[in-house]
Amino acid sequence: MDMPAPSPAILARKGAIVDRLRAMLPPGHVIDDPAETRAYECDALTAYRCPPLCVVLPTSTEEVSAVMRLCHEERVPVVPRGAGTSLAGGSLPTADAVVLGVARMTRVLETSYEDRVIRVQTGRTNLSVSMEVEAEGFFYAPDPSSQLACAIAGNIAMNSGGAHCLKYGVTTNNLLGATVVLMDGTVVEICGPEAEALGLDLLGVVCGSEGQLGVVTEAWLRILPRPEGARPVMIAFDANETAGACVSAVIRAGLLPVAVEFMDRPCIVACEAFAKAGYPDCEALLIVEVEGSEAEIADQLSRITEIARTFQPLEIREARDSAEAARIWLGRKSAFGAMGQMADYICLDGTIPVSQLAPVLGRIGELAESYGLRVANVFHAGDGNMHPLILYDANAGEIDKAEALGADILRLCVEMGGCLTGEHGVGVEKRDLMETQFRADDLEAQMRVKDAFDPDWLLNPAKVFPLHVSASRRAAE
Amino acid sequence: MDMPAPSPAILARKGAIVDRLRAMLPPGHVIDDPAETRAYECDALTAYRCPPLCVVLPTSTEEVSAVMRLCHEERVPVVPRGAGTSLAGGSLPTADAVVLGVARMTRVLETSYEDRVIRVQTGRTNLSVSMEVEAEGFFYAPDPSSQLACAIAGNIAMNSGGAHCLKYGVTTNNLLGATVVLMDGTVVEICGPEAEALGLDLLGVVCGSEGQLGVVTEAWLRILPRPEGARPVMIAFDANETAGACVSAVIRAGLLPVAVEFMDRPCIVACEAFAKAGYPDCEALLIVEVEGSEAEIADQLSRITEIARTFQPLEIREARDSAEAARIWLGRKSAFGAMGQMADYICLDGTIPVSQLAPVLGRIGELAESYGLRVANVFHAGDGNMHPLILYDANAGEIDKAEALGADILRLCVEMGGCLTGEHGVGVEKRDLMETQFRADDLEAQMRVKDAFDPDWLLNPAKVFPLHVSASRRAAE
Repeated sequence: MDMPAPSPAILARKGAIVDRLRAMLPPGHVIDDPAETRAYECDALTAYRCPPLCVVLPTSTEEVSAVMRLCHEERVPVVPRGAGTSLAGGSLPTADAVVLGVARMTRVLETSYEDRVIRVQTGRTNLSVSMEVEAEGFFYAPDPSSQLACAIAGNIAMNSGGAHCLKYGVTTNNLLGATVVLMDGTVVEICGPEAEALGLDLLGVVCGSEGQLGVVTEAWLRILPRPEGARPVMIAFDANETAGACVSAVIRAGLLPVAVEFMDRPCIVACEAFAKAGYPDCEALLIVEVEGSEAEIADQLSRITEIARTFQPLEIREARDSAEAARIWLGRKSAFGAMGQMADYICLDGTIPVSQLAPVLGRIGELAESYGLRVANVFHAGDGNMHPLILYDANAGEIDKAEALGADILRLCVEMGGCLTGEHGVGVEKRDLMETQFRADDLEAQMRVKDAFDPDWLLNPAKVFPLHVSASRRAAE
Repeated sequence: MDMPAPSPAILARKGAIVDRLRAMLPPGHVIDDPAETRAYECDALTAYRCPPLCVVLPTSTEEVSAVMRLCHEERVPVVPRGAGTSLAGGSLPTADAVVLGVARMTRVLETSYEDRVIRVQTGRTNLSVSMEVEAEGFFYAPDPSSQLACAIAGNIAMNSGGAHCLKYGVTTNNLLGATVVLMDGTVVEICGPEAEALGLDLLGVVCGSEGQLGVVTEAWLRILPRPEGARPVMIAFDANETAGACVSAVIRAGLLPVAVEFMDRPCIVACEAFAKAGYPDCEALLIVEVEGSEAEIADQLSRITEIARTFQPLEIREARDSAEAARIWLGRKSAFGAMGQMADYICLDGTIPVSQLAPVLGRIGELAESYGLRVANVFHAGDGNMHPLILYDANAGEIDKAEALGADILRLCVEMGGCLTGEHGVGVEKRDLMETQFRADDLEAQMRVKDAFDPDWLLNPAKVFPLHVSASRRAAE
């Protein structure tokens, strides 16, 4: 991974910079001991690592603002960091950058059940937001698999989704307002508990901006009343095409399941060997979950199975109780574990239009064969978010081949009308594929907005935009 | 209304500019005859008028791009215009501006029922999008009252809502992608049928930007399967507080009605006198509509009335058939007509947190009394979007007093945690109140984004930002 060379001038001033940072933060909140900064060398994309200049852990918006003002003055790059769970290298440091971690900003600032909002500091973990409001019967809808660990700050930076996003949307649909610290230390309040923005709506562009525009320190989040119950049905088919057509028919009928998960044969076989969930021998498996009151669940499930039956499924298995529901989910939830036991793997998250499901799966099979690698597909089918798992053997030096196949699959997603990433973000991982998705004028428009917020390009360097595309701007550094 | 003085240099070059525009557009698509430009002097905020330099009516993105490139070169302001139904003066011209109307861009470019998307030119009217897909059982959800006339371009510019927005969201929740022509003629493609954005998500900031950033010429819109049916229930209360508490309880229980409409006594009395819908004698009336399959409707209505009964309503009236449903809606739908017959009126659209409903209504009553004017409140209660109607007598010269009361009510909305406008936009109408909503740093951040898209501030001049706040930027013109 190409990264820009660190600034020798900043490296030379390290001692002075660290001293100034220490003076503005509580004791122990500035880390520069190499043994301690090691934990910040990478995020969950562990293939790429770099020790930062130092790490700061502020506790308030005011402290974040002070740190940013100093870094702006000293022209030191800042790498914002939530909980470090990015799969795309979204918080990979450079050697001359200050990592600004929000992990110690975890306070709940305000809760209103009547207005269905909560305001938190963004270092708070995703799951702990739901736990905070659970006793009152509420929850926070976005639920990435890493929800136990990941921070709201990272969810906002990556516009994270999760298993429930077909029904509840992704972070941008559940974020109502944000306090953002710009690179020069200015504190900006964007929107708020009233969902309607006026003037220019900056919330949409800040959400998903991967730390390119500012550091989000506080957030107003929509909380929702927990549904009374939920129940899945499993439907098995003898062809990917039929399973894909069934998904389209369910969506088209206006039904809104909470989740529609799709697994292809390689995935089913691996999960079954690993978890013994009792999945049938078939080419494609759907798990469709609905939720609501008992009457709503029964009504929706009967309409879904009625539609499914018109596609001659091999089997329809409705969960009659929570044990059966857990058994249906067991295989799917162990998919990543199952793959990990079989081989090393790369997990992609390209998206495609639901209508292109069958041809895309066919083409992925051909690509995999041409590379001599296996790909298992598990997939949020309702919203077209694929998760092809490329299996390879690291010991046999297959990583480069697997990465090349991954890039080919993502190019295929774009070609079929989809995009490079559904929920993991671009980071450094998909940075060099951005020109597959965007024309030069489209990237230029995005970079002009980056210019408006961060004219010196000091924030989260070398992410999102291909280096040669942003070169003239960074040269001004 | 203060507007900047027109540029004498542009006025002097009018003939040459019109000739160049004529050379690039089909015959009859450039209008400069004062008799014909009269129709473009104002939009639905008819109190403010100004004849433009000329009007152009391009038919394609390419023609829009050519017009913008020319205007950019000549440094001529451009006022984008949809169907001219803005209630906020969003397309009020200046004398030195070219009005760029998209009314002749009405083509449907692509439809996929499987992926639930339609791509249209943005001059197409809102209702005609739904009509295009009606035969296949689909509809386009945002439905402003002006939907017969208003254009998708204007819906995007103002982020329009409508009666169904509690359930389906506003334009930003139903817009999947856009082709945008920037002021220098550059054509940018933003997002597309796959809802997930990557890189910087410019769609959110373009939606609702009131023509400040570019001209949206084509749009990908989400279409949805039409629900099987819908049914309202009317609930009468003896106090605004109780009605407000009932709305909060329904929302909090996780029920998702399509609409929750609230009318206070002055509104009920006026509507009843006008439409004779048979409304009961009460202080506050709720109309709650749900939709779905027959089973879902029955389930939801029974849960809503169960909650309502705990608030001791004066009456609960469920519609048993479509005639009864129409009767329940009759009074509400004639509210604006009823008011128009009684008096001149100003319709505001401030929003407030649902929890603040009762105190805000109390305070509005006090304000109205202090001005010696009457205010009737009709209100999308589910999402806190108020529509206070200020009644006044234009012949008695009460307009200034009514406008002053309007500004006080909007300031009150902001003070209570709400905002100046839920769906009508800022335009020129609420431009000078923006500092009530935003601090200087917040407005500065918005204006920096405007700078990024339109550095010379040529697009839709004198809207959204208070003139004294944007003065230094416009001075650079």
